[in-house]
Amino acid sequence: MSSKTARISTPIILVNFKTYLEATGEKSFELAKIAEEVARETGICIIVAPQTTDIRRIVGGVDIPVFAQHMDPVGAGAYTGHVTAEAIKEAGASGTLLNHSERRLRLSEIDSAIERAKATGLTSVVCANTAQVSAASSALKPNMVAIEPPELIGTGIAVSKAKPEIITNTVSFIRQIDREIIILCGAGITKGEDVSSALKLGTQGVLVASGVVKAKDRRSALLDLVRAALEKA
Amino acid sequence: MSSKTARISTPIILVNFKTYLEATGEKSFELAKIAEEVARETGICIIVAPQTTDIRRIVGGVDIPVFAQHMDPVGAGAYTGHVTAEAIKEAGASGTLLNHSERRLRLSEIDSAIERAKATGLTSVVCANTAQVSAASSALKPNMVAIEPPELIGTGIAVSKAKPEIITNTVSFIRQIDREIIILCGAGITKGEDVSSALKLGTQGVLVASGVVKAKDRRSALLDLVRAALEKA
Amino acid sequence: MSSKTARISTPIILVNFKTYLEATGEKSFELAKIAEEVARETGICIIVAPQTTDIRRIVGGVDIPVFAQHMDPVGAGAYTGHVTAEAIKEAGASGTLLNHSERRLRLSEIDSAIERAKATGLTSVVCANTAQVSAASSALKPNMVAIEPPELIGTGIAVSKAKPEIITNTVSFIRQIDREIIILCGAGITKGEDVSSALKLGTQGVLVASGVVKAKDRRSALLDLVRAALEKA
Amino acid sequence: MSSKTARISTPIILVNFKTYLEATGEKSFELAKIAEEVARETGICIIVAPQTTDIRRIVGGVDIPVFAQHMDPVGAGAYTGHVTAEAIKEAGASGTLLNHSERRLRLSEIDSAIERAKATGLTSVVCANTAQVSAASSALKPNMVAIEPPELIGTGIAVSKAKPEIITNTVSFIRQIDREIIILCGAGITKGEDVSSALKLGTQGVLVASGVVKAKDRRSALLDLVRAALEKA
Repeated sequence: MSSKTARISTPIILVNFKTYLEATGEKSFELAKIAEEVARETGICIIVAPQTTDIRRIVGGVDIPVFAQHMDPVGAGAYTGHVTAEAIKEAGASGTLLNHSERRLRLSEIDSAIERAKATGLTSVVCANTAQVSAASSALKPNMVAIEPPELIGTGIAVSKAKPEIITNTVSFIRQIDREIIILCGAGITKGEDVSSALKLGTQGVLVASGVVKAKDRRSALLDLVRAALEKA
Repeated sequence: MSSKTARISTPIILVNFKTYLEATGEKSFELAKIAEEVARETGICIIVAPQTTDIRRIVGGVDIPVFAQHMDPVGAGAYTGHVTAEAIKEAGASGTLLNHSERRLRLSEIDSAIERAKATGLTSVVCANTAQVSAASSALKPNMVAIEPPELIGTGIAVSKAKPEIITNTVSFIRQIDREIIILCGAGITKGEDVSSALKLGTQGVLVASGVVKAKDRRSALLDLVRAALEKA
Repeated sequence: MSSKTARISTPIILVNFKTYLEATGEKSFELAKIAEEVARETGICIIVAPQTTDIRRIVGGVDIPVFAQHMDPVGAGAYTGHVTAEAIKEAGASGTLLNHSERRLRLSEIDSAIERAKATGLTSVVCANTAQVSAASSALKPNMVAIEPPELIGTGIAVSKAKPEIITNTVSFIRQIDREIIILCGAGITKGEDVSSALKLGTQGVLVASGVVKAKDRRSALLDLVRAALEKA
Repeated sequence: MSSKTARISTPIILVNFKTYLEATGEKSFELAKIAEEVARETGICIIVAPQTTDIRRIVGGVDIPVFAQHMDPVGAGAYTGHVTAEAIKEAGASGTLLNHSERRLRLSEIDSAIERAKATGLTSVVCANTAQVSAASSALKPNMVAIEPPELIGTGIAVSKAKPEIITNTVSFIRQIDREIIILCGAGITKGEDVSSALKLGTQGVLVASGVVKAKDRRSALLDLVRAALEKA
């Protein structure tokens, strides 16, 4: 792993910027700066996942791990319009989300992308929509699996409160296959108590997007999540 | 399970008709008839997987299990142009291949399609291109997993001879996750000895396509495979 | 063209069975029989588009044109799980829908599928979601283009009443490119007056699905549409 | 259009960096610098299309039009892992390729992406694999259409020499639909004479990738192409 991924510690707050205008271009840099400050003040590991166009700029000015939101399972060569491990690594990313519910991949593509991530020294986080899919994802040996029931994404109804059994099943299924892999959960996370529940249920962190990106006070929203993580850390 | 799937026993010879003209329409029926005769004479379980257009006709005149080659993870409703579990079940199929290397599915689609197959009483066979993908597939709890390295498909170079370690890895990885699931292997299978090797390596059967469909004497080609299975049965 | 496609005359009522249970298996045959009777009694051209599994059976007992709902742009060979022109032709279909909003294709795939349909003697109907896409589709020289705004599909709000400008734009754009191609419209068609409006706006027929398939009295529903077409014929 | 797209003039040399390592990161900047120098010295319009991760950096230091290689037909919002018009515009791109043969799009996606490009002030270049697809693409009203037979891409056998009839058909078909649209051609372009042929056949420029990116002397390779364009300019 690169030096930046080495800095990853649990619990993890991973902030997905999606393609929100509130986290595009200059605004993505501002949000990453806030995340860096909160991470430094609290010691909690915050990872940001901006759009591909913004990776290099954020890495240039912010000292926390930066992940891509997606990576294609192809390498250098005649692959017009694809996002390669080589490109995001060169831009400074230290990891990538894979198979987010808004960007689903074929099973064989996830396998291939994880291999490419490993070969390039990138941390891979496979997103999954069910406990079974989480288990299957863990069998591919990524660094992390993130369970996110798509029906709760963007609702503000936290998966850790509304569907705790999905998380406990995910943890249980994955742990039968892999003892070490980091398990995150996401969907509807907006408050500190959502993070507390998630950690209590056996995960090592959360994925959050609109709950921070579209918050009126983004620093406060992030701090609220981080403080809940601190209790556990 | 339906009465037809109940008749499935190992070892299994699963013949994939693909879209070969030699196994389309009237010719698909003739080939299914040959498979039925060989199955009856030898007692070995032969499953045929014709094109969707030919399922009903074959089921109407041939008394061996008939599988679809693919099924979409959608149900009855406004899904123009899709192949549903309900439709292939109604046509008489008792199972389906999923995620063949020529028809790859997203991970979440495979999970959903397996659920639909179960709910409809269809046997599901997930195809996988690597040992890792095989393991991941088994975590989704289909009835069978078939390992098929795509680079050997159609070559006549049997996976069980050319890449035995892929099969042993697949068996080993899957057995850590599931003790019961039926494991098949395919790609390049044309001769009885390919089947023998496959079974010795720990699988419960083979997937074969051009090796039978495009053989000069299809009955002989199939008999050769079945005799090798008989030794093991 | 085959003898069956030769029987196509305008105006056209094309009934898409989708994957509705009310039009699957035995029920698809019953519905096709109703369509045949109404077509014979009135002389209006009714085309049915059942699921692939039901094509052969309907063609075997019903004497009206039968279309597939989708066709893949691949031919005979190693294409597991695909629907080829050869297969649906052999099953007795005389045409196919392409690019339905529930089964969108890549531009190059539509081009290739039209070529395959022509080579096999199948009538091709490309579905389009906007007037621009309709114009683009007509440049690929299929036999018919069907404009269907997806937001109205299944609503019962007829495109010909709710968005007449989409139809007039479609007709205008297409006619600048091709004088001959048959233009259909669909989405929300349930009543005779929807057909009348569609024909007055310059189309040569309609695509209808739930308006007939899910009607309480399917024969009456179809007759209502056909009578409106008769006035124009 | 933005001030940068306003600077586009024909004939055009569009250099697609694909995901070649020779045009990734720092090396993409170097290649863009070479393109800028050649453009300044000769007055010929050279457009570069680097990977998304490199757009901002190149725009920051190089004063020629920079295009994305691909753009998704989605906007700002919950679209994890997508490349939006807003993001590439904000990064400084003034246009985008769409539907490259290595990144094919659905017909409806091309239509939607062109709309989004227009709304954002980005120049759109739709790539097409046949003359029919070129005509269809022009009906969608992008700013440019680029005909590229995929079988010649990367071969060094120039489309303008090997298949001139594809280009003349493309020009003829498009001009029946649109008098103004800029027509490019690509695939196998490596030498000045390939550009001369392309322009003589009625195009307004070329798409080139490996012919420049992987040339031993990239400046010389580009100059060779540009000089041929100069004769025509």
